[in-house]
Amino acid sequence: MADEKLPTRAEDFSEWYNQLVLRAQLADYAPVRGCMIVRPYGWALWENIQGALDRRFKATGHQNVAFPLLIPKSFIEKEKHHVEGFSPELAVVTIGGGEELAEPLIVRPTSETIIGHMWSKWIQSYRDLPVLMNQWNSVVRWELRTKLFLRTLEFYWQEGHTAHATRQEAVDETKQMLDVYNDFAMNDAAIPVIPGVKSEAEKFAGADTTYALEAMMGDRKALQFCTSHFLGQNFAQAFEVKYLDQNGQLQHCWTTSWGLSTRVIGGIIMVHGDDQGLVMPPKIAPTQVVIVPIYRTDEEKASVLKVAKDLKTRLIQACLRVTLDEREGFSPGWKFNDWEMRGVPVRVELGPKDVVKQAAMLARRDKPGREGKVSAALADLPATIEKLLAEIQQALFDKALAFRRANTHEARTYEEFKKAVEGGFAFAYWCGNGECEEKVKEETRATMRCIPLDPGAVMGNGGSSGSGTCIYCGKAAKDRAIFARAY
Amino acid sequence: MADEKLPTRAEDFSEWYNQLVLRAQLADYAPVRGCMIVRPYGWALWENIQGALDRRFKATGHQNVAFPLLIPKSFIEKEKHHVEGFSPELAVVTIGGGEELAEPLIVRPTSETIIGHMWSKWIQSYRDLPVLMNQWNSVVRWELRTKLFLRTLEFYWQEGHTAHATRQEAVDETKQMLDVYNDFAMNDAAIPVIPGVKSEAEKFAGADTTYALEAMMGDRKALQFCTSHFLGQNFAQAFEVKYLDQNGQLQHCWTTSWGLSTRVIGGIIMVHGDDQGLVMPPKIAPTQVVIVPIYRTDEEKASVLKVAKDLKTRLIQACLRVTLDEREGFSPGWKFNDWEMRGVPVRVELGPKDVVKQAAMLARRDKPGREGKVSAALADLPATIEKLLAEIQQALFDKALAFRRANTHEARTYEEFKKAVEGGFAFAYWCGNGECEEKVKEETRATMRCIPLDPGAVMGNGGSSGSGTCIYCGKAAKDRAIFARAY
Repeated sequence: MADEKLPTRAEDFSEWYNQLVLRAQLADYAPVRGCMIVRPYGWALWENIQGALDRRFKATGHQNVAFPLLIPKSFIEKEKHHVEGFSPELAVVTIGGGEELAEPLIVRPTSETIIGHMWSKWIQSYRDLPVLMNQWNSVVRWELRTKLFLRTLEFYWQEGHTAHATRQEAVDETKQMLDVYNDFAMNDAAIPVIPGVKSEAEKFAGADTTYALEAMMGDRKALQFCTSHFLGQNFAQAFEVKYLDQNGQLQHCWTTSWGLSTRVIGGIIMVHGDDQGLVMPPKIAPTQVVIVPIYRTDEEKASVLKVAKDLKTRLIQACLRVTLDEREGFSPGWKFNDWEMRGVPVRVELGPKDVVKQAAMLARRDKPGREGKVSAALADLPATIEKLLAEIQQALFDKALAFRRANTHEARTYEEFKKAVEGGFAFAYWCGNGECEEKVKEETRATMRCIPLDPGAVMGNGGSSGSGTCIYCGKAAKDRAIFARAY
Repeated sequence: MADEKLPTRAEDFSEWYNQLVLRAQLADYAPVRGCMIVRPYGWALWENIQGALDRRFKATGHQNVAFPLLIPKSFIEKEKHHVEGFSPELAVVTIGGGEELAEPLIVRPTSETIIGHMWSKWIQSYRDLPVLMNQWNSVVRWELRTKLFLRTLEFYWQEGHTAHATRQEAVDETKQMLDVYNDFAMNDAAIPVIPGVKSEAEKFAGADTTYALEAMMGDRKALQFCTSHFLGQNFAQAFEVKYLDQNGQLQHCWTTSWGLSTRVIGGIIMVHGDDQGLVMPPKIAPTQVVIVPIYRTDEEKASVLKVAKDLKTRLIQACLRVTLDEREGFSPGWKFNDWEMRGVPVRVELGPKDVVKQAAMLARRDKPGREGKVSAALADLPATIEKLLAEIQQALFDKALAFRRANTHEARTYEEFKKAVEGGFAFAYWCGNGECEEKVKEETRATMRCIPLDPGAVMGNGGSSGSGTCIYCGKAAKDRAIFARAY
């Protein structure tokens, strides 16, 4: 596990990532090409992410549900953009119970269609609206180039689906959920994200408008953190989701959908990780504190373990997630490396001298060596560690934000633009034309990530206001967009 | 919703069940035959069940994981009993990304095979054991005769999978998890279950021994509440799951699996429900308390709602799950019926006179009419309701246990046996021969449910001990088994 050295990020970022995911036992490759197994450490992280989001979804009035895995093929074909977007990616069940099926079934790639179908039965009147639903599940999309967590045939996510009486209410919901994700990204994942609008080319198949959060990874490439779609009346019309309004008129509903997937685990690894391994944000870390006992003799062992176990109990009582590493046959130094690789935010080193002094050495994962070490009294340890975890959480966010800003460049010429996307994000005026977007992609491999909702926050300097000219065609442009090479 | 009367259970138990599931909006039929949609009220119940079990799984050292949905077809064929059992029930993906697959993929019916495959890579040494895993997911089995929650093509469940160094440890794990389920059934679902061993004919395809909990429904039929399987070395041999023991010898692991599904929701409905509708056990009820405000004038409305909202806040602070029914256009009487149908354990009726008296009327769902009503001071209401919920929880269990015992008959002759299974459980000596079991099934439609682990607890009288003669063939028999018609 911690025996071999990881490649450094500078040497080979992609290989650093792949090996780290396997060594930290977050996930493994499944026997079916492109599928993954999420192992206990990875799933514990996902459960913490789920908890943090589910709380927010419920606080904003959403209820969890479960729609089926299998969808009649004909459903996918009812919304024309949807079918174009998803047809090449479908897994199709053609045999059930030993017999060929009359109508093939799709393993859901997303659930707008089956939910639309059921809403047309459940929604009758304005009294039934809004409908605010969410489900935690997995979906299947037949991806050709896969990478653990970032792009897999099957992935885990939540998909929220809502129906509203008015356009405005649906637009507000779409933006509200983007805010909910933003709050989670900043406060729990410690990832500074850029909320924005996607281009026509990059939006969801079937959406009127797709909003997204974009984040910068440690190799300066972009990762789409999540999306929130305003679906207009597209699915409501395809599936005849209608309601009687207060004047007795039949109206189509306005709908939204929004999702966040196990991709964010990849994001967390690539934003915070360093050459020693993972760095887990304390709020969602599966283990927040690891206690490593240090001893030579049996006598020392007995006295250190007694204090360590007592400490563990007190930390659990303080609602901290704690592991006491009692593994035999491994040196303390080996254990330090192992837990560093797994990204545990705080390590408690406890030896015979500490026991005598009624103290312990605390080591911060985010600050290597001496700098991150401090001795603290055992009596106050739960409070000291809670404070330290909050500091680490903030420090991770600050560091990631400084890194993103340092590697985002306002590009005024196409030359500046090309240089910018070589080493990070380019923030540039764009005419809004899909042809320019396509040319830029061909020539630089950078895609249009989003038009930031708050352009002034991108550089942190309020930004230059007003309008400019398109980075590619030179025509007048009022929107400034983030362009970058992306996962 | 509450407008039409349900059929009574005596009139048509099956139709009472079907209509109740739909009307209480627990679930609905999906467009794909045999699949279901679990609606918010049903999923909230499942989330409470998940929480109650997941806590227990983690307390006994298990970690959650996620193995993929899609399994290579060849895996299913590696364990000979497993393939025989599951082949007729498989859903097969033959097309992916627009192309025919070289090897068809199975939508998992259960995950022993893919887990065995991965364990063979992860498990090397005795130091890696035991492996204690669980996953919450859905599985697909191509059932022909389906019924919401009780038998659906896709259903939600958890599947625990463990690997051990010794036979004894695996047997102990199998029994421990049966105990965990039993604890949940009794204390949370308020269902008295009979822990026992399945016959060869009824055991899991691939198991050495299947343990199960059996419960009696309101129509006196049996429902298998969950199962816990000792798998011996069957899957370890099929998938070469081996470890180096402390003497450097390569050994096959001993494995177990255990599962509980959304079927138990059907069980909860059929054990506790009455002719008015659902009766939810307080510990897992999505809503434990509903407050129905009563008023005529705007003035009354203002004063009643103010007190009702304050009360709701106080009940939430006491960690109770509360709904305040503020719906306009429905009479209090209509609301009473509606919440009765949905099985909410305690109803708080709050009118202008109550506000003056600083009191409220509490109505117990499990005791109809006057008998279940009591006026209580507002000041003490959180504590009063907590106490009431605990009483209701116990009363539901006691009633179900009394019902099961009253409808379980010790049968000494085949005539007695045939009469017994007409109206409940027969508890009878059985030679253990599968032919007798098969004949009994043909002639009476009763199946062997289990050989109780504690025969004395079945009737509650310690039972007759010793041995007897087989109810069918008359040969000497040492096992007594429960036989019943079953879901």
